[in-house]
Formats: sequence, C-alpha cells, structure tokens
Amino acid sequence: MSQSITATAPATLANLGSGFDVLGLALAGDGDTVTARRLRGAAGVHIEAIEGDDGRLPTEAAANTAGVAAIETLKLAGFTDVGVALTLKKGLPLCSGLGSSAASAAAAAFAVNQLLGGPLRKIELVGPCVEAEAVVSGRHADNVAPALLGGLVLVRSLDPLDLVRLPVPEGLTLAVVTPDFDLPTADARAALPDAVSLQTMVGATAQIAALVSAFWSGDMSLLSRGLTDSVVTPARAALIPGARAAMAAALDAGALGSGISGAGPSLFALCRSNRGARAAMDAMAEAFADAGLPAVGRISPADCPGVRLI
Amino acid sequence: MSQSITATAPATLANLGSGFDVLGLALAGDGDTVTARRLRGAAGVHIEAIEGDDGRLPTEAAANTAGVAAIETLKLAGFTDVGVALTLKKGLPLCSGLGSSAASAAAAAFAVNQLLGGPLRKIELVGPCVEAEAVVSGRHADNVAPALLGGLVLVRSLDPLDLVRLPVPEGLTLAVVTPDFDLPTADARAALPDAVSLQTMVGATAQIAALVSAFWSGDMSLLSRGLTDSVVTPARAALIPGARAAMAAALDAGALGSGISGAGPSLFALCRSNRGARAAMDAMAEAFADAGLPAVGRISPADCPGVRLI
Repeated sequence: MSQSITATAPATLANLGSGFDVLGLALAGDGDTVTARRLRGAAGVHIEAIEGDDGRLPTEAAANTAGVAAIETLKLAGFTDVGVALTLKKGLPLCSGLGSSAASAAAAAFAVNQLLGGPLRKIELVGPCVEAEAVVSGRHADNVAPALLGGLVLVRSLDPLDLVRLPVPEGLTLAVVTPDFDLPTADARAALPDAVSLQTMVGATAQIAALVSAFWSGDMSLLSRGLTDSVVTPARAALIPGARAAMAAALDAGALGSGISGAGPSLFALCRSNRGARAAMDAMAEAFADAGLPAVGRISPADCPGVRLI
Repeated sequence: MSQSITATAPATLANLGSGFDVLGLALAGDGDTVTARRLRGAAGVHIEAIEGDDGRLPTEAAANTAGVAAIETLKLAGFTDVGVALTLKKGLPLCSGLGSSAASAAAAAFAVNQLLGGPLRKIELVGPCVEAEAVVSGRHADNVAPALLGGLVLVRSLDPLDLVRLPVPEGLTLAVVTPDFDLPTADARAALPDAVSLQTMVGATAQIAALVSAFWSGDMSLLSRGLTDSVVTPARAALIPGARAAMAAALDAGALGSGISGAGPSLFALCRSNRGARAAMDAMAEAFADAGLPAVGRISPADCPGVRLI
C-alpha cells in the first residue's frame, strides 16, 4: 500500500441539450486535486486541509464530497479499518455549474483507490462519487461519470448504474463562460417543474435521440438542431442575468448550440472548431458584461480525459 | 402524365421503446395498395372502391387517409385542378397497431405523385401523409415516415418536419403478433397520461438515448437494456388482455425486448435473428391464446423498404 497518492479530476459539463441528468462530458484545464495519505492508528476519513475555497467548504468528511467519496470508496473496497487523511486543492470555482463537487469526489475516490493498491476499477468508483454528489446536489452521475472516465458519457440508469461512452466528432470544441453570479445548485433545482406534459416528454426524447445520432454520425447540422432543450434551460436561464442574451449571442457567433452548464450559472456553446469556440466565448462574455456581470471563459475540446494521477 | 399508377406501402411499427411518436420502422410482407387514375373533366380526389375493409372505411375522400393524403399531395404539388380516382386495397388489418392508416396514406401519396410525373421527392410526401394521419389518429409521423422511406426512422420534429434515418444492426428481426381484439386508436390515446414527472421524462430521455446509441454501435445488450418504456407501454398494456404475459413470454423466449406496436393491440419483440423471432412469436401467440385471444404473427427483418410501385 502506498503512503501518499495525488490525483486530479477535471471540470465537467452536465445537462447537455435535452440530456438533463443524462449527458455530460469532461473539460480540459485545471480541475480539483486531492492528496490521500495513509493514517496509521486511526480508521476512517479525515480532511486535513482545503485550499482555494475561501473557507466555504465543510472539513467534516461526511459533509464534503471528497470526504464522502473517500468513505464510500473505502466501504466498497472493504477497507473500512483503514485511516485516510485527505487534502483538497480546489481548482474549480464553487457553485459555477462546472462540476466542482464532482471533481473533488472523483479525485478523492481515485486517490483513495490507488492508495489501497487499486482494488476497484475506475468505473466502480462512479457509485461512491454519486453518493458524494447526493450529499450536496442530488443523486446524478452526469458530472461524476465524465470526471472519472473522461469523454462524453450517457447515464442510461443510475440504479443499477449503466453508463455508455459516446463518440465525439473530430474538432468539436466547447466554449464555457462563467459569470460572476452566485446560483446555488439547490435554487437551480428548485426552478425546475415537477411535471411536464406528455408532449414535452416526446419532444425531449426526439431531441436527445437526434443529438445522440449526430454524435455517432458526425452530422453537425443535426447536432445543432438536436441540441435544444425546452424544459430545464428556459427554467434556469430566467435565474441568470444576461443568460438568454449570451446564448443568443453564441448562436449569432456561429455556435452549433448553446445552453446552461450543469446547474449554472456557467453557459456553454458547442462549436465546430477552436476558432469558432473563441468567437462564441467572446460573444457570451460580452453579453454578460452588458448585463453587468464580469465573466471568465474557457475553451475545451469535447473529448477530454478524466481523473488522473499527478 | 400517366393514366394509372399502382403503389403499395408496408406495415410499420411505431412507438419503439421510449420512442412514442418518435421512432418507427417499416415491416416486411403485404401492405396496402392504392391505384391512382387520372379523371378527365373533374377536379379533386374521388375514392372509387375500397377492398378488404369489410365496409368499415369511409369512401368520402376527406375522411379517408388515402383520400386526404392524395388531396394534400395534389395541393403541395400545385395540381389542384387535376382529378384523381383512387381504388384502395387493404392488405393490413384496421386498428391493429400496424400502421394501416399510414400505409394507405403512403401508397396514395406516392401513387398520386407518380401520376403527376413525380414533382415531389419521397420525403416531401411525409407532410401530406401526416395530415392524413391527423384525420384518424393524431398528428404523428412515426408510421408514415417509415411507410414512405423504409427502414428505421427518427422523427426529430414534426413542425418543421425533421427526419433522421438510423442504422439497423445486421440480423435484427422482429416478431409481431396481432391478437383478435379491437382496440380503437382513440381509446389507446385516451389511456395515456396528460403529464409525467420530470424524473419520468429524464428516464425516457436516458432510455431512448441508449437505444439510438445501440442502433449505431450494434451493441445488442445495450439495445436490450434501452428498449424499455415506463410511460406508454404500461398504460396501454392494461387495455389488452394477455399483453403483459405475452411481452414477458417474448423475453423468456430470448427476445431483446418487447412492447406494443403503435397504438396496439399488436405486440412486437425485437430479436437477434430470424430463429429467435420465431420463438418469440410462438411464445407471444401462446400467451394470447391463454388469455382467450386467437392471434396472427408475422416475422420481419428490422430494415425493410418503404412504399414502391407495383
């Protein structure tokens, strides 16, 4: 058994198109980093330090996604007598819709599993990370699955867990823009309708079916047509100043489609190329500026790796 | 302009899996046949004769799907001054869930378009056929689209019409069993819920996304897992004696999945091979027999041609 393991997990974009709680993908760039260290003479998970959260995250393991993911990983692997100390370095902003809680969970689960000698396969870490997400933002796997596995992941079922890796057409690139606006995940969830009409359900199934077909075929026009969502995106866009204008600006700038990343307030635009993504990013940032919100943008290929050791 | 054209359109299976109003495919075997003949000195569409319906279908053109499809095709092609006489030969049973109304519409639209010299492309005939369907069973294209185009068709949008042909894995075969039970389309539609929970919508999108991915990848296990439906199938199965037992029997016989064909009462089983489909067909027919209903079965490859001239 190793003495200390450090892992980093990326930002993720969930709720792609009509794929609320169903479709997510890994993003490039800095993520969250967790170091797991063996504690002698003590069982359980202890969070020793958290950097980069401005003191906002709980250090109690059972209330922190890194802590819960570590606890559940130890439990699943049958190592409940082992003591683990975690240090968490947040690279991702909290409550931004970039899968910050999922990244912490994925990095912690992966680091702890490696510390134990790797008894679990990567895909088996999804379950512990879903339990971690459930503590802070509801049971869903469309952030933790791509944070662990990388790429574009379809969550067919949560119980039992059933994940499908989807192909990503060459060149497909994301612009993600995060406005300086606080939108707690709980508020974003509360904005959703409890029920939808049967007709709306039919529309959502038609959209996601077209989107998945476009990922397989590489038909960028179909991908664009299939990327809309009439349920979750409109409900949440109303909560984010400038969001509607920013999404429209991304389309005007040539993006295939646009939407809210995760629970928001970050927005994404899916684009044919890196150059197109830069134009969409600038257009979205400008729309947020017009609404009085400074914003930070990032560009990412649509097919990026998940968690890794560092 | 020709004097007389005869076309035949196949049975179709709609509402595949969670693809209510969204996914349909063409079946092999006898369909409905329409002869369109030029009428001199008279404008509009006149139905001269209908065979094989036991006198149940209206001969008024505006109330008959063949008639409406012909009228709308003339209108779309700009030939409203032309007179057309139709004779319709029903090869498909009425109200069986096999797309009987769609087959009549597709055969009529195709025959009339050919009679006019083919001014419209086949895909342009979908609109006129949707208007025909609307007269008898609601606006939906998942029967008329495969009846015209053949194969497995995804209806991304009805207005504007947006159709996607999906690939069909080699060997995939259907067993379709029609019990001797009258289930009017209107009753089958009335059994559906007006609304579903957001969670149910998420489940439906996850299922159809997996199903579409499986059609592309040929992953038969995923196809099987993605073929379920928790909304429409349970609501309608309750209306058809023996349906639940027949669907369970198909799975026991090795089918990948089973469900209701269109509005029912026909059931289908999707199978890996012709041999598997025969076993599923026999098992479903036996279950209907146990419920006191004689039943007729058919076997079809999953990738069959649409309307054609004869």
